[in-house]
Amino acid sequence: MKNRALLMVVLALVLQASHYAQPQKVQFITPPAPQFTDAERQSELARRRAAVAAKMSDNSVMVLFSAEPRIYTNDVDYVFRQENNLYYLTALKQKNAVLVITKKGGSVTETIYLPKRNPQFETWNGKMYSNEDATRLSGIRNVVASTELKAFLDGLAAKSDAAIRSVYLLLPEGDMDRDGKREFRQESEFSAKLSGYTIENAQPIFAGLRLIKSPYEIRLLQHAIDITIEAQMRSMAMAQDAKMEYEVQAEVEYTFRRRNADYWGYPSIVGCGPNATTLHYEESQGPVKGGDLLLMDVGAEYDHYTADVTRTFPVNGKFTKEQAEIYQIVYDAQEAVAQAAKPGVSFGQLSSIANRVVTDGLFRVGLITEKNPAQTRLWFMHGLGHWLGMNVHDVGDYGNLAAGMVFTNEPGIYIREDALDYLPDTPQYRTFKEKVRPAFEKYKNIGVRIEDDLLVTPTGVEWMTGKLPRSIGDIESFIATARKTKR
Amino acid sequence: MKNRALLMVVLALVLQASHYAQPQKVQFITPPAPQFTDAERQSELARRRAAVAAKMSDNSVMVLFSAEPRIYTNDVDYVFRQENNLYYLTALKQKNAVLVITKKGGSVTETIYLPKRNPQFETWNGKMYSNEDATRLSGIRNVVASTELKAFLDGLAAKSDAAIRSVYLLLPEGDMDRDGKREFRQESEFSAKLSGYTIENAQPIFAGLRLIKSPYEIRLLQHAIDITIEAQMRSMAMAQDAKMEYEVQAEVEYTFRRRNADYWGYPSIVGCGPNATTLHYEESQGPVKGGDLLLMDVGAEYDHYTADVTRTFPVNGKFTKEQAEIYQIVYDAQEAVAQAAKPGVSFGQLSSIANRVVTDGLFRVGLITEKNPAQTRLWFMHGLGHWLGMNVHDVGDYGNLAAGMVFTNEPGIYIREDALDYLPDTPQYRTFKEKVRPAFEKYKNIGVRIEDDLLVTPTGVEWMTGKLPRSIGDIESFIATARKTKR
Repeated sequence: MKNRALLMVVLALVLQASHYAQPQKVQFITPPAPQFTDAERQSELARRRAAVAAKMSDNSVMVLFSAEPRIYTNDVDYVFRQENNLYYLTALKQKNAVLVITKKGGSVTETIYLPKRNPQFETWNGKMYSNEDATRLSGIRNVVASTELKAFLDGLAAKSDAAIRSVYLLLPEGDMDRDGKREFRQESEFSAKLSGYTIENAQPIFAGLRLIKSPYEIRLLQHAIDITIEAQMRSMAMAQDAKMEYEVQAEVEYTFRRRNADYWGYPSIVGCGPNATTLHYEESQGPVKGGDLLLMDVGAEYDHYTADVTRTFPVNGKFTKEQAEIYQIVYDAQEAVAQAAKPGVSFGQLSSIANRVVTDGLFRVGLITEKNPAQTRLWFMHGLGHWLGMNVHDVGDYGNLAAGMVFTNEPGIYIREDALDYLPDTPQYRTFKEKVRPAFEKYKNIGVRIEDDLLVTPTGVEWMTGKLPRSIGDIESFIATARKTKR
Repeated sequence: MKNRALLMVVLALVLQASHYAQPQKVQFITPPAPQFTDAERQSELARRRAAVAAKMSDNSVMVLFSAEPRIYTNDVDYVFRQENNLYYLTALKQKNAVLVITKKGGSVTETIYLPKRNPQFETWNGKMYSNEDATRLSGIRNVVASTELKAFLDGLAAKSDAAIRSVYLLLPEGDMDRDGKREFRQESEFSAKLSGYTIENAQPIFAGLRLIKSPYEIRLLQHAIDITIEAQMRSMAMAQDAKMEYEVQAEVEYTFRRRNADYWGYPSIVGCGPNATTLHYEESQGPVKGGDLLLMDVGAEYDHYTADVTRTFPVNGKFTKEQAEIYQIVYDAQEAVAQAAKPGVSFGQLSSIANRVVTDGLFRVGLITEKNPAQTRLWFMHGLGHWLGMNVHDVGDYGNLAAGMVFTNEPGIYIREDALDYLPDTPQYRTFKEKVRPAFEKYKNIGVRIEDDLLVTPTGVEWMTGKLPRSIGDIESFIATARKTKR
């Protein structure tokens, strides 16, 4: 070996230059993850549980089950993710942990049912919590073996305590109940066994609480966002070296794992050129072309909090005139929303602002013939944004903003190449198509979304994604610098 | 390029050392993915369907549903994976596609029920198959809208065709039926509606066929294995720069995505030091220490075929005497198995060979006091291996080997630090513990598994993982070269 090996290595180096993109230098590096002491975590969780208990009617019980594992195929499961609300109150990640909160005569008791440690299981699957672990994590002192859970639930079903009038469970509602109650199956099944009780859905209690993020939560969410900023920058810098979308996706998800994110909060969307006009494009099987825009809608999840950040940028680092025109409309809409956002303003008002700016812009460039919402909807077909937190589309009613809420500000314009084909063949639509055809041909296959995560403060908003280049100028100069460094 | 480029590359290499581990140069690069023409794919799938139909009794119907999406949380699903057997016969990845095979009076008809394309859905979620796409992919000409499926199933349930006697469905059996029939829920529910039929479980038909891999399948599986080899090499080369296990995992999964794997076939296991003694350790939250062994049991999945490859190597590139002693026992067991493996030999015989070599080794180093299986089981507590294919633990009975089968050869020895604590406190076990204590203290916290993927040939086996360093010498020299290149 020795010299010969070295020679082979250098050769290999040259040969492989095209295979792996170089890590980029001009970028933001995620700061260390937030650390909390046991006391800090326990007091935060105790505060949350007290808030939940305060919303429960007297003489009631709340039972929160762990999420069920989800089959990938045969005996392989997807990576387990704890049910959000149980995690929100306990910080327990273990399968089959159950929290019971009882409120009786105004006094509240909390019990964790926990699978007993089992050496054989641990040999196969890793450490389980001891009772002390569960108490240290959650601050809940009363930890009971899971083997006692059935007796407790049977007792509850048998109304063994006549004082208890209501039972709170997480129950599917509306479109959470997709495809056969898969998320809250066990809760639904258990509720069917309960008679003589008022069954209350626990979801609204959690929705109300989780809508306002505590400083503790904001730190975790900011960390998820920081990881995502780093991933976006890394990808922006390397995209020009990629041949296929999945190569860019690899950079994003590499950063997620490398920075110890749980992983993603939703499947990564990495679409180039025409693929950028599909809102939830997940395939990543298209080519990456220098003259096209690349849309990346990605979010790291860290400790159950997910970021949700979109950037759209020219692969070669320079917007064409047409790309820049569409981009600027979306940018202006986003700016207008952020400037108007503050406590007391409604989410609906913000949507109207975005729609107005986008409508004006589309009219200006000739993609619509009159300023009416139905026409705008053809090119901007999704809402302005959503709450962000433990779910990417987080829980909570869409009313007025208040300090501590976090929302995504994500207008977009998508000139799908088949958009005009599906319009009804009526005289009115034929006229419309004729009029917008020139602009349509000019902007066809451009898709732009810009999405930032905004924290509502007492006086306005804070851009949690503020470190990530966003204006046309900033994006172009970021990519230019990244490219120069590389040479 | 040329000299200047080379200099810059070396410079860039040095500058970047701290932020991201370097892509390593001394490594195997995955060859291009196998390509098949439409005709090749269609004829392969037609052959499989014919084989399935041949096993169906006459006057019967087989209904294969798509997998159901699996909830991650709220309105976010995990990345969809098609049900293996439907995919095996159709190559259709789309949700809600259904295949019906009817065998009547000896003649076979095949029908695909396919959701109709819908522009609004496509705007949100991407392209759906046209009927022509489905035919081109699968070779099946008869493609019908999904809206007609209900009428067909209702008709079947109503026994509208008196000639049909049996219905074949994929039904849960044994431990596939974990936690409430989650994998084949819809099939189970549908079967409950059928009366007057013989209900046949379709699984044994597929198990028998899928056990023997065709040359077409072998090419896909080899590609998944090649991606995994590259990932392992990359990780071996960079491990010394990692502080935490998740950083090494990031390199593995980066390679998976970068090479366009579906992703993994099972969650990555990356455990350092004591964590290497947990068989399915998935947390990756431990430190990576130079003097420890790092166990990586990882497998890329490509086009539904999964690799399953384990290497255990010293982070600093040099085995200690104790690590090498344990490693060599496992290596010898693996070699003995491979040498004995050929058509006609039973899987049970191979297991016995592995157990004998491991037992001899454990006895030699003093970790057991007599050569009996119960003692060996304390340190080698899992089976020798399993079939490999569209599932990591692939379908098929464990009988005699035959050409075209693929199995994992994966002996292991795990000296868990709490292993002796859980032995019963009897005089016999006390004596055992006393005798093995010195060896136990010497080897404590060493975990070694070596796992290769072997294709049974007419005369023996082919190591599909053969390009990945495996012997102590090869691993040490691979890491040394990789390290030298980096400096």
